[in-house]
Amino acid sequence: MAEKIILGIDPGTNVMGYGLIQIEGPTMKLVAAGVVRMEKIKDHALKLKRIFERTLMLIDEYHPDELAIEAPFFGKNVQSMLKLGRAQGVAIAAALYRSVPVIEYSPKKIKMSITGNGNASKEQVATMLQQLLAFKESPKFLDATDGLAAAVCHFFQSTNKKPVSKKNWADFIAAHPDKVLK
Amino acid sequence: MAEKIILGIDPGTNVMGYGLIQIEGPTMKLVAAGVVRMEKIKDHALKLKRIFERTLMLIDEYHPDELAIEAPFFGKNVQSMLKLGRAQGVAIAAALYRSVPVIEYSPKKIKMSITGNGNASKEQVATMLQQLLAFKESPKFLDATDGLAAAVCHFFQSTNKKPVSKKNWADFIAAHPDKVLK
Repeated sequence: MAEKIILGIDPGTNVMGYGLIQIEGPTMKLVAAGVVRMEKIKDHALKLKRIFERTLMLIDEYHPDELAIEAPFFGKNVQSMLKLGRAQGVAIAAALYRSVPVIEYSPKKIKMSITGNGNASKEQVATMLQQLLAFKESPKFLDATDGLAAAVCHFFQSTNKKPVSKKNWADFIAAHPDKVLK
Repeated sequence: MAEKIILGIDPGTNVMGYGLIQIEGPTMKLVAAGVVRMEKIKDHALKLKRIFERTLMLIDEYHPDELAIEAPFFGKNVQSMLKLGRAQGVAIAAALYRSVPVIEYSPKKIKMSITGNGNASKEQVATMLQQLLAFKESPKFLDATDGLAAAVCHFFQSTNKKPVSKKNWADFIAAHPDKVLK
């Protein structure tokens, strides 16, 4: 069975959430997830440096095959979009530098892909991810789930399948009768 | 006398202008200048990759001590600012990756520093650069001068001096009587 590792990140200038999933055929499992906090870094260039270095570290540690990035295309004002663009830019640069393909998904697309509702709350996405990946972390983990959600969205998009949990074989078999050996 | 190389760049998603100047005490000379054209690259990620790679190439070839970047903080709309932010982000990432300090200047500051007029035209800035650095390239060179202008602006700002041309010693002596050996 094909095996692949997807790194998902949600780059921001205060918090960067990331998640790594491993794909084995039609199933996925959680490899790692976390946040890079930058609230205390006042210098903008140092924030960008942190994002670049940490993205590079994640790539060098886990060797992901693809990077899925949460990329909003609209925002409140030009100032915040410029900063967001820079944060995205350095994360993308880290991936390009290591020849990891980058795929972008809008927040709406990610929410839709995971919960079936493009306007789902952060909590709803987190709850669905907990079910899909069988983890039980507390809500303070929420920032990390945005990165993880991008990775899971990419898996669903690239396989063009509905959410499938390893814990829920009945649903899986119902959705994919062709996968059942007879 | 202190010697330093400054790389100036003006990153955009269609054209990136760059210029390199070498500082020797109170004087500067042109090392290189040019443009990286990306109009024909349709994929946004490939444009970013080009900016990252070319910035890295310039750093590895010329070993600049500092990167001066032209960085507008306001733009027409959030979409274009996000793209511009990404272009800036990858260029900044390349510098950070090679531990080259990054200094940002607004377009207005650069124009003011070089011509004395924050609303100077591109042509006026180019003409002044031609005098300061003694080159005679044609107007098609204009895109490159934006990067070069950032480098020269940084030199002026870091020395806190008015424009000084090697060709214009009378003006220089008048502006800096303390530099004259007696």
